Amino acid sequence: MLEAVVARLNGLGYRVAAVKHDAHRIELDTEGKDSWRLRQAGSSDTLLIGRNQILWMGAEEAHFDLRALIELFCPAADIVLVEGYRSAGLDTVWVQRPEVDDPEWREPATGQVITKAHPDDVDSVVELLLSRYSLGG
Amino acid sequence: MLEAVVARLNGLGYRVAAVKHDAHRIELDTEGKDSWRLRQAGSSDTLLIGRNQILWMGAEEAHFDLRALIELFCPAADIVLVEGYRSAGLDTVWVQRPEVDDPEWREPATGQVITKAHPDDVDSVVELLLSRYSLGG
Repeated sequence: MLEAVVARLNGLGYRVAAVKHDAHRIELDTEGKDSWRLRQAGSSDTLLIGRNQILWMGAEEAHFDLRALIELFCPAADIVLVEGYRSAGLDTVWVQRPEVDDPEWREPATGQVITKAHPDDVDSVVELLLSRYSLGG
Repeated sequence: MLEAVVARLNGLGYRVAAVKHDAHRIELDTEGKDSWRLRQAGSSDTLLIGRNQILWMGAEEAHFDLRALIELFCPAADIVLVEGYRSAGLDTVWVQRPEVDDPEWREPATGQVITKAHPDDVDSVVELLLSRYSLGG
């Protein structure tokens, strides 16, 4: 859904930023790389800065303010789409397959559910975003 | 040198952050990954946020203020060691093998050269950092 909505809005000429929160599955560091070697050497924070990429790796878990990250990294975006950051209190598109009964699933704790959608409902979600955030005009 | 100094200061109990600026060689994105798919979909900025890793990727080159990045990502560090950010005007340890005659090499344009060191001069660089930045006490 995120990918499809990004593609659709991008196709309409908007500058779309995508944010994905994934507590477990980011695997960016590889043995032997500079970043890996710096971490092995004991750096508390390792920051790699490239032309159009920035990677921070902390020796410990850290919590960043989502809005501060977005302000820093996506200042020019027309719309920022966020996946999986329930605690941030954002407007929420609730995407769920009706047939899935996921025991892990919790209703968004904060944030306003602006629509519930099936993963295939890309058209209606895009239309809602365009009208809700005045991206049409 | 960076790796060795990080290891030495870390061994002395300091919280050391390492920043590496590398305009060309960061290769974090891999075909098929979520980040790659979001970029393919046309996201202007792709931000992946994990427990202790954050990756930003821009569709275009962007310039960030080094101090803003350090303030955000390394707030608790006792010392931040930066490699390859000559334009930032930082105190500079000039590391060069005497036998290397690199035509690409330029004297740091800004920033104060606090010492010139051979890559093996880890001890003396660490001592200088400890005294200069009052890390000893």
